[in-house]
Amino acid sequence: MGRRKLVFGAALSGGGENTAVWRHPRDLPDAAINLDYYKNAARKAESGKLDFVFVGDSLYINAQSHPHLLNRLEPLTLLTALAGVTSRIGLVATLSTTYTEPYNAARLFASLDLISDGRAGWNMVTSALEGSALNFSKSTLPDHDERYLMAEEFVQVVKGLWNSWEDDAFVVDKEKGIYFDPSKLHVLNHQGNYYSVQGPLNITSSKQGHPVLVQAGSSEAGKAFSSRTADIVFTHQHGLEEAKRYYREVKDKAAAFGRSRDELFILPGIGIIIGDTPAEAERKYEEIAGLVNIKDALTDLAKYFNGIDLYRYPLDEPFPTELVDAGSNGYRSAVDRMVGLAKEESLTLRQLALRLATPRNGSLLVGTPDHIADTIQEWFEQEAADGFIISPGPIIPEGINDFVDKVIPLLQERGLYRTEYETDTLRGHLGL
Amino acid sequence: MGRRKLVFGAALSGGGENTAVWRHPRDLPDAAINLDYYKNAARKAESGKLDFVFVGDSLYINAQSHPHLLNRLEPLTLLTALAGVTSRIGLVATLSTTYTEPYNAARLFASLDLISDGRAGWNMVTSALEGSALNFSKSTLPDHDERYLMAEEFVQVVKGLWNSWEDDAFVVDKEKGIYFDPSKLHVLNHQGNYYSVQGPLNITSSKQGHPVLVQAGSSEAGKAFSSRTADIVFTHQHGLEEAKRYYREVKDKAAAFGRSRDELFILPGIGIIIGDTPAEAERKYEEIAGLVNIKDALTDLAKYFNGIDLYRYPLDEPFPTELVDAGSNGYRSAVDRMVGLAKEESLTLRQLALRLATPRNGSLLVGTPDHIADTIQEWFEQEAADGFIISPGPIIPEGINDFVDKVIPLLQERGLYRTEYETDTLRGHLGL
Repeated sequence: MGRRKLVFGAALSGGGENTAVWRHPRDLPDAAINLDYYKNAARKAESGKLDFVFVGDSLYINAQSHPHLLNRLEPLTLLTALAGVTSRIGLVATLSTTYTEPYNAARLFASLDLISDGRAGWNMVTSALEGSALNFSKSTLPDHDERYLMAEEFVQVVKGLWNSWEDDAFVVDKEKGIYFDPSKLHVLNHQGNYYSVQGPLNITSSKQGHPVLVQAGSSEAGKAFSSRTADIVFTHQHGLEEAKRYYREVKDKAAAFGRSRDELFILPGIGIIIGDTPAEAERKYEEIAGLVNIKDALTDLAKYFNGIDLYRYPLDEPFPTELVDAGSNGYRSAVDRMVGLAKEESLTLRQLALRLATPRNGSLLVGTPDHIADTIQEWFEQEAADGFIISPGPIIPEGINDFVDKVIPLLQERGLYRTEYETDTLRGHLGL
Repeated sequence: MGRRKLVFGAALSGGGENTAVWRHPRDLPDAAINLDYYKNAARKAESGKLDFVFVGDSLYINAQSHPHLLNRLEPLTLLTALAGVTSRIGLVATLSTTYTEPYNAARLFASLDLISDGRAGWNMVTSALEGSALNFSKSTLPDHDERYLMAEEFVQVVKGLWNSWEDDAFVVDKEKGIYFDPSKLHVLNHQGNYYSVQGPLNITSSKQGHPVLVQAGSSEAGKAFSSRTADIVFTHQHGLEEAKRYYREVKDKAAAFGRSRDELFILPGIGIIIGDTPAEAERKYEEIAGLVNIKDALTDLAKYFNGIDLYRYPLDEPFPTELVDAGSNGYRSAVDRMVGLAKEESLTLRQLALRLATPRNGSLLVGTPDHIADTIQEWFEQEAADGFIISPGPIIPEGINDFVDKVIPLLQERGLYRTEYETDTLRGHLGL
């Protein structure tokens, strides 16, 4: 691999940088269930020569969930539908390692990969939400570190199943009556701590070999997992210095596992708010932040604290640090970060809730196209990121549209981003 | 519902009326992995105004499996891809109730149903193959009747999850800030013998309400399940009288559950071999049957007897009836039928194996287009069937192409089949 390449994914679901963005007059409030939105967004991202589109997921909702989580298409079927209206861009779907069988996961992704002719990627998540267990006949969420042990084994099984058939196993010689070469069929016979999977898998590999592996873990266990296993790390960073530390740490870990530092792409998620002038961009931000009320902000914050009733605490006094003990198992590192932030900046509960409601410290870029291109270039050149995953919002679909129309051309002019696809697989785009 | 309607599905996978058909010069041996084949076949079926296309499945292969099972696209992703190239025809995918989580199954089908705008159907199978358990961290296949108890509860959960959101639950009033009406959100809270699923599901229903339910059980437990739960029964019948008995029995059972006899469609699977003359059709049959050798036929037969080595038995002496004790749990009714047939017609092991290799007693129609249309009409009018699921073979894709080009027009001329779609949902096509 030569010079580092800037990499971009476009997140098509999720978004909603605050819980009230759907109320904005220009926001598409049913985007998560709107196939036309998805098709247009995927084609838009492809027109900008982005590396991939990305679809997040969750397996639990309740009446307090973010609007865009309540009613959404399932990622594998959605991305298969998008495979039919695109031809080059990668297609990354989220699937849980905690609530899926490895054999089913291996098949679904292999099938998406064949249908898209080598463009599939798998965002491996361990499903942090406590409530998910209740949808899957389990009384409790497995412990955080145990979920990662399960995930490590799960991915090992899936990769093993993907190797069931060598590329030239299917001879299909009608004359001789030889359908396949048995020496090129491999039975996995996996017997592990969490899974026993015999194999072989009943599907072959695409021309990119295996789907690209994406992972978003920021805990110690998560970083160990992604640095060993992932091709792409999807992360959320809150400032340049923090991002550089994270970048160095994960690349060091990858190197310690014997991997090249260039084989692992670290992509923070960002939303963008663009104005022709800085002032116009700020006005847009204020308009969006102003849609949230404190009640919604507290409800959202409570998610990280096992849904505790935060109204019991005084809103305008220092953040009650004893809440750290109520932090959810599933969000350990996020809870630590929030509690740390509250301490550091002496935030009140109200201030922390509103900051969380529309955060802009690194994950939401507000400014002119040039400012945003500069920030991207700075993070890339200073090795804080290998690229970014662009949010569909805050106002859906303006985030992706603005990025492709206004920021990508600047990066292309600067020679930082491709003007044409050179390959037609996701692995190819990444140079892997 | 008025006059009975003839119903047709086109099976796009499986096929292979014998294990050697792939060697035929005109057969498409990689059909199961060939997206262009699937797209063409689905469009062909839609041009014939068929009610639905159907994709079978299995979760276990080994080196002895039928060629068309070894390497195949996964049904949900495949049918989602086909949703994009069709607009009216129903899309029925197979998914196991034994090796899937109900929450995942409910989502996948709801998503296919929304993406196809109301055309999804679910072929509920309990996964008979003993080996499947070994791919899913289970040491043994659950007992036949237990699989059906699990399936009953599984479907109850899935249907419950599909009712999570009432049709008009999502108000999305930007002015008032009301995203949904909480009184129209239903939490399932299912606690059963096999599954505990809280809900709600994070996806709404399509305009057809729920995906159509298809089931193919011929055992007592299977018949009880389908007559209570299914909209369509996919069956294999071996003669008119047997089919009429089966038809009456299942409809009686449905009536006993308080259902209308017209709400349940009984569709035997058939393959067709068409010739301009009866002799030409017979020649085609002989050509296909002649592709099989006795070794393959025995391997195939052995599948029903736990893979026992049938070479140990004399080929040309009466079928060893003691083999009935070696019959697989997963294929109880098929084993009983085969052993019965061998006894009745005093077949040798070789004869039974070859008969099984290319059976034509009801499930493979051989003749002129008129003969095939006559047979279909007879079965329909005599209440042996409400329609049929047409195999893609024997020679893929000639089965479906010949059916649409040569048989459908005759049935249309006779006023027995639609000449245009009257609705654009699967449930609508069925008049449900």
